[in-house]
Amino acid sequence: RVDGARLWRSLMAMAEIGATPAGGCNRQALTDEDREGRDLFVRWCREIGCEIRVDRMGNLFARRPGIDNSLPAVMTGSHLDTQPTGGKFDGVYGVLAGLEVLRTLEGKGVRTRAPLELVVWTNEEGARFSPAMVGSGVWAGEFSLEYGHSRRDKAGKSIGEELARIGYLGSEPAQPTQIKAAFEAHIEQGPVLEKQNQVIGVVTGVQGIRWYDVTFSGTPCHAGPTPMEDRRDPVQALSGLCERLYAEVKAYSGDARITCGDLRAEPGSRNTVPEKVVLALDLRHPAPEGLAHLHRTLYRLAAQVQEATGVAITVREEWHSPPVAFDKDCIEAVHSAAQRLGYSHRRMVSGAGHDAVYVSRVAPVSMIFVPCAGGLSHNEAESAEPAHLEAGCNVLLQAMLASAEL
Amino acid sequence: RVDGARLWRSLMAMAEIGATPAGGCNRQALTDEDREGRDLFVRWCREIGCEIRVDRMGNLFARRPGIDNSLPAVMTGSHLDTQPTGGKFDGVYGVLAGLEVLRTLEGKGVRTRAPLELVVWTNEEGARFSPAMVGSGVWAGEFSLEYGHSRRDKAGKSIGEELARIGYLGSEPAQPTQIKAAFEAHIEQGPVLEKQNQVIGVVTGVQGIRWYDVTFSGTPCHAGPTPMEDRRDPVQALSGLCERLYAEVKAYSGDARITCGDLRAEPGSRNTVPEKVVLALDLRHPAPEGLAHLHRTLYRLAAQVQEATGVAITVREEWHSPPVAFDKDCIEAVHSAAQRLGYSHRRMVSGAGHDAVYVSRVAPVSMIFVPCAGGLSHNEAESAEPAHLEAGCNVLLQAMLASAEL
Ligand SMILES: NC(=O)NCCC(=O)O
Ligand SMILES: NC(=O)NCCC(=O)O
Repeated sequence: RVDGARLWRSLMAMAEIGATPAGGCNRQALTDEDREGRDLFVRWCREIGCEIRVDRMGNLFARRPGIDNSLPAVMTGSHLDTQPTGGKFDGVYGVLAGLEVLRTLEGKGVRTRAPLELVVWTNEEGARFSPAMVGSGVWAGEFSLEYGHSRRDKAGKSIGEELARIGYLGSEPAQPTQIKAAFEAHIEQGPVLEKQNQVIGVVTGVQGIRWYDVTFSGTPCHAGPTPMEDRRDPVQALSGLCERLYAEVKAYSGDARITCGDLRAEPGSRNTVPEKVVLALDLRHPAPEGLAHLHRTLYRLAAQVQEATGVAITVREEWHSPPVAFDKDCIEAVHSAAQRLGYSHRRMVSGAGHDAVYVSRVAPVSMIFVPCAGGLSHNEAESAEPAHLEAGCNVLLQAMLASAEL
Repeated sequence: RVDGARLWRSLMAMAEIGATPAGGCNRQALTDEDREGRDLFVRWCREIGCEIRVDRMGNLFARRPGIDNSLPAVMTGSHLDTQPTGGKFDGVYGVLAGLEVLRTLEGKGVRTRAPLELVVWTNEEGARFSPAMVGSGVWAGEFSLEYGHSRRDKAGKSIGEELARIGYLGSEPAQPTQIKAAFEAHIEQGPVLEKQNQVIGVVTGVQGIRWYDVTFSGTPCHAGPTPMEDRRDPVQALSGLCERLYAEVKAYSGDARITCGDLRAEPGSRNTVPEKVVLALDLRHPAPEGLAHLHRTLYRLAAQVQEATGVAITVREEWHSPPVAFDKDCIEAVHSAAQRLGYSHRRMVSGAGHDAVYVSRVAPVSMIFVPCAGGLSHNEAESAEPAHLEAGCNVLLQAMLASAEL
């Protein structure tokens, strides 16, 4: 069994880096805060004798040797980067639960047959650099290294530049090694476990996600003398499209999700009709045909609103992460660990994307969810019960031990 | 008669300062470009023997003495600041038409009885600092000097700081002197004169303007696992309000105007429902009761959408510039000058706000409009015919001479 108090102390120590006045964290990918978080992680891993490797995407690998190091490793991990107004647990819990597993084994002097690998993936959130999960995506072969390095934030800085700047542009190739099984612990980020009073989510897969930049191009003109009928106003097109899209997405299915996370008007002057508005759009559905339907709905409505308003609407797909089903044996390892430990549990599909999605392309994978208060995440008020975090960590320990063999 | 070619050369020389690749100007208030434009204006005025005074709002006054300098002055002028993607004529024409009048009188050795005063007002556009016409507004007593100095741009810099930085924080009190009459020449910024093939707009007044910051406050949460019915999504509230507001404003009257010039989402991360969205809104109507109706419509719809979405909507009025009627004698001076000069003309109400609005609080005022291509303004493609600009300048000269007496 793991030490829940030690796990909690580590979470609270990491949460000090990039702590916000409202009690959350702003430790966005490849900022100075991210560097500080990585430094702390590396120090903690070295204290228990782990060797650290950094790959060319800045992914960090802490290895705990096994009895037979020719065997494929058992992997765990998640990410340390946060949303701009993020919480203390999203991602961090998966990393520090993995660390707690290693510390527990080290403390008890337990050696597994297979080596264990604890990973911190770069830029999982997709908040600073689009898309999400780009570090694990490059590692798993979904994206090229060039693509990964070339992703830019709003200020124009690239992942490659920022990795070099913070000293985490490693020399190891960003490509998979032999992995026997991988597990990622995470807060649920939704309300299901809490509402049903369950402690462990046995995660069977992840819903599909598609990201778009939707650009509305009008004609800038004066707010006063220009007659309404002479205008091509991108805000009118934006609101027309959003009204219809929200309505259709909600009517289609209770499982469908639409989020308009960012909006930008140019030139952004109150008494000038904007030349353009750019909308950062996120659509999700657990079923491939459901997600395809949302995709078609977006293009259909965009064409209609363009026709009706005269505002040119271009929809550029930024990212497509299709629905993923996790590995049967890994799911079973999580399930039987929860059962043996006596934790209430249920099978569930993740609503959020995770590094486990890309890891699952090259290795058998499952995930372990624990409840978070009110299902709230990507919010500074994100919170989770120490007892639940400890329970998830115990499940992780048991699942990893079962896979790595004693 | 004025020298149209010299006027055009001055306009083109000023347009080089802050010239944009797309052929417009970005010479926003109190930037380095604005300083350069002011420096050029001051040099030109000194070349014809004018004395320059700068007041504490950075308004520039170039005085051409009359025969009897105890008489109230006849004033003209406008502004040199532009929109971020502005044109070459908006404001600049009114300043350089005034300069051309002074140059013409100087060239012919004509001395008027009353002194003439040519003004450059600070931050007319309201693009960098809200509200518009704040330099003339402080001078005329509509705003206090403290209010004027404290207005801040999006980066948090204040008018007071920026005036000092560019060296145009003058020592003269920002308050009216005795003015016999004031005239402002300007491009129409709308399509009326061009469509009706007329050269001169005899401006009888300015429509009313109200500016608002509308803030939609929701709950930030994760784009994936959060069920749609658990969300308080500010973008949904924004699009719901805009859809209804555009529809009601347009249905109310062909004279009503609605513009959503700027939008900002916070924290602005694609996979997080925004915590808040702020909309910079501009409503206009030529009649006081029409504008009051639009104002009430905004508050009523905001309350409805707040009720329907659970998103808190606060409407903060930033600025109210009621409809203004200009002075009968000044209007007549413009009208009879256009008639005497044989230019086709019509009476019209301005759709844009102008410094003349605030000057009219303390002096008799009218304006002279000339056509601009396609009625387009607040756009880098803004353009006007040299012959029309010359005609407007001739009308200005005649109206000023009639008021200042030979
Ligand atoms: N877990 C998490 O917040 N991932 C970010 C990627 C996503 O938007 O689902
Ligand atoms: N003339 C002009 O563009 N003024 C700006 C103030 C307004 O928005 O009407």
